[in-house]
Amino acid sequence: MKEKIFIFDTTLRDGEQVPGCKLNAKEKLDVAIKLEALGVDIIEAGFPASSPGDFESVKLLSQHIKSTTICALSRAHEDDILQASNAIKNAVKGRIHTGIGTSNIHIKHKFNSNQKDILERAIKMVAFARNLAPEVEFYAEDAGRTDNDFLARVVESVIKAGATIINIPDTTGYCLPTEYFDKIKYLKNHVPNINKAILSCHCHNDLGLAVANSIYGAMAGARQIECTINGIGERAGNTSLEEVVMILKQHDDLNLYTSINTPLLTQMSRYVEDTMRMPVQANKAIVGANAFSHSSGIHQDGFLKKNETYEIIKPEEVGADGSKILLTARSGRSALAFRLHKLGFNFTRDDIDLIYPKFLIFADSVKEVFDHHLNDLATTCLNTMLPVCEAKTN
Amino acid sequence: MKEKIFIFDTTLRDGEQVPGCKLNAKEKLDVAIKLEALGVDIIEAGFPASSPGDFESVKLLSQHIKSTTICALSRAHEDDILQASNAIKNAVKGRIHTGIGTSNIHIKHKFNSNQKDILERAIKMVAFARNLAPEVEFYAEDAGRTDNDFLARVVESVIKAGATIINIPDTTGYCLPTEYFDKIKYLKNHVPNINKAILSCHCHNDLGLAVANSIYGAMAGARQIECTINGIGERAGNTSLEEVVMILKQHDDLNLYTSINTPLLTQMSRYVEDTMRMPVQANKAIVGANAFSHSSGIHQDGFLKKNETYEIIKPEEVGADGSKILLTARSGRSALAFRLHKLGFNFTRDDIDLIYPKFLIFADSVKEVFDHHLNDLATTCLNTMLPVCEAKTN
Repeated sequence: MKEKIFIFDTTLRDGEQVPGCKLNAKEKLDVAIKLEALGVDIIEAGFPASSPGDFESVKLLSQHIKSTTICALSRAHEDDILQASNAIKNAVKGRIHTGIGTSNIHIKHKFNSNQKDILERAIKMVAFARNLAPEVEFYAEDAGRTDNDFLARVVESVIKAGATIINIPDTTGYCLPTEYFDKIKYLKNHVPNINKAILSCHCHNDLGLAVANSIYGAMAGARQIECTINGIGERAGNTSLEEVVMILKQHDDLNLYTSINTPLLTQMSRYVEDTMRMPVQANKAIVGANAFSHSSGIHQDGFLKKNETYEIIKPEEVGADGSKILLTARSGRSALAFRLHKLGFNFTRDDIDLIYPKFLIFADSVKEVFDHHLNDLATTCLNTMLPVCEAKTN
Repeated sequence: MKEKIFIFDTTLRDGEQVPGCKLNAKEKLDVAIKLEALGVDIIEAGFPASSPGDFESVKLLSQHIKSTTICALSRAHEDDILQASNAIKNAVKGRIHTGIGTSNIHIKHKFNSNQKDILERAIKMVAFARNLAPEVEFYAEDAGRTDNDFLARVVESVIKAGATIINIPDTTGYCLPTEYFDKIKYLKNHVPNINKAILSCHCHNDLGLAVANSIYGAMAGARQIECTINGIGERAGNTSLEEVVMILKQHDDLNLYTSINTPLLTQMSRYVEDTMRMPVQANKAIVGANAFSHSSGIHQDGFLKKNETYEIIKPEEVGADGSKILLTARSGRSALAFRLHKLGFNFTRDDIDLIYPKFLIFADSVKEVFDHHLNDLATTCLNTMLPVCEAKTN
């Protein structure tokens, strides 16, 4: 029996706080409507106390989004929490996400405080929020660098105070996957009331490990993953929604699933890329422009014999255009024959052997060989190599 | 005692085969000179049998690069290997990298063959290459999906035939980190002559796990990582050099090191981005434009109190410009005061409390607040709020 991983999308909060990505309320609503259609379980809509504009955005989303939970971020301050609760008051399903730094470095340098006072404040603010919202999620900021024993005490206490989702952020993106796994496992094993809450992974990508860490968190028992479209977010960004979703889908043995409608992933990615003006690199996993492009001869030959030799995901599973066979000077005979055939030229194997060296000389002179180049090449070959070439167009 | 991880850069082979990234011989040499200065141990310079242009490139690099090994790719064909050996014959340190698919899907669908014949061909071609080059690396293509028992037999046999580096590629990017760890560990434990060779990680990023898998391969005993600058490569690309290098540097407890001169990482990334025309996304780990930018109020406040609250790598360690404090509607009072102070305005805490709501209203209307906006805002406040504001410019 597979267990569900809840997808908590924070594109509109952790993603949107990046310079240049800021959206107005209408733009946020447009993204939220698409996230709802994608099958996201929770949308973190913003941080209402941060600005009047963001308050209005969260309010607008709460009025319009019906099937997905709308979550509002707040610090562990009464005023922040009040603003968050006001912003989500019209939501069908509303959630307040409040919390505080729990690592020694945060407690000492950010709050000039101590573990006892931080714990008290966490309990008090969760209880306060619980009276104002149907659901409270607590974040233990910098949990990745928080001593496990203190973290377990905080988690136990805030669950008692009414939090039903506990977010364990690797705020600085420092953990290795098995370290993050061990942290989640520690909480599952050492917090007596852990079954009354869902643990959530919120990983940052400073070392390129956000996705791996989130998956290992889920393998250890977390049941919510916080992520953004295209992995956008502060500094090196957050966990990529599309990557965690496809890992869980591909790795059947993990016995986990999400409710994401994966054929919408590519269009969702493009929409966020355009709206938030954050270009996605061509080699981005799952949604990059080249994610399903095969260019080397060795790969193209294998792929043309059987897709699965070089492709583990079918492009249509994520809504991408079909796999591409691109021609460059690293392409082989199979790819050349395939592309010529697509253009209507039916060359024999021997013909291709004759054309291939001419193709390579030309391909060495350009970045990529396009259809019009191929047409010219094939026509020249037909004119100069006859009667060897008996190809005809169909 | 730390052990060294050899960095095998394949930007010029696996990276360069991507459409649009193709370089001519002179451009390849320029990149190679910078890779040598970066401290890369091995440069995979190209695939000489693929085209006359690539043969010339590998030959040129072999003549000019003195301290770094120059490696040439070839399939397990005598003709390919001969061309590879001719291309590297002038190299001070030359290596041939040859191999064949070992997974059932590759053996059956790509080669229409069987394990026995594939094993014989592998042995024969390694022995052939060993007579032509000072060093032979063998790749077991699609090792990620190859049954471990057969893989161990192949590895043992090709070591006997003269290969001293064995590449275990996760060709389709399917493995999870602990699966890849287990595969490397299996080989370390089951191949009797494994101490005569170095195991190498070559991971693809189709599920966003190439970097994590490479690190877990090294944790299991591999001592070479194959990677590219910015993670470029076929489909979703290869392991990012800059990410694996910085993970090994940050995670002292792994007891591993590389010879990479990390303050050159950012300029190397920018050079490859420009030369190969593959833009790097702003939220790319280590080298993205935003990798050291702090924009949310919560983060900025903590960062300004102590960098380490939100930053695990100092920008200068990777040659990036200093950390940036960017102002948007998600910024807080600390960041506003910090940036105003940088502009020469010395506002008091109370002044900032008065200015902040005006700042937020303005910030809600733009994507990012720049210095000239701040100047206007501060000047207006000075004119309208006096005598409350006693700030003066310095």
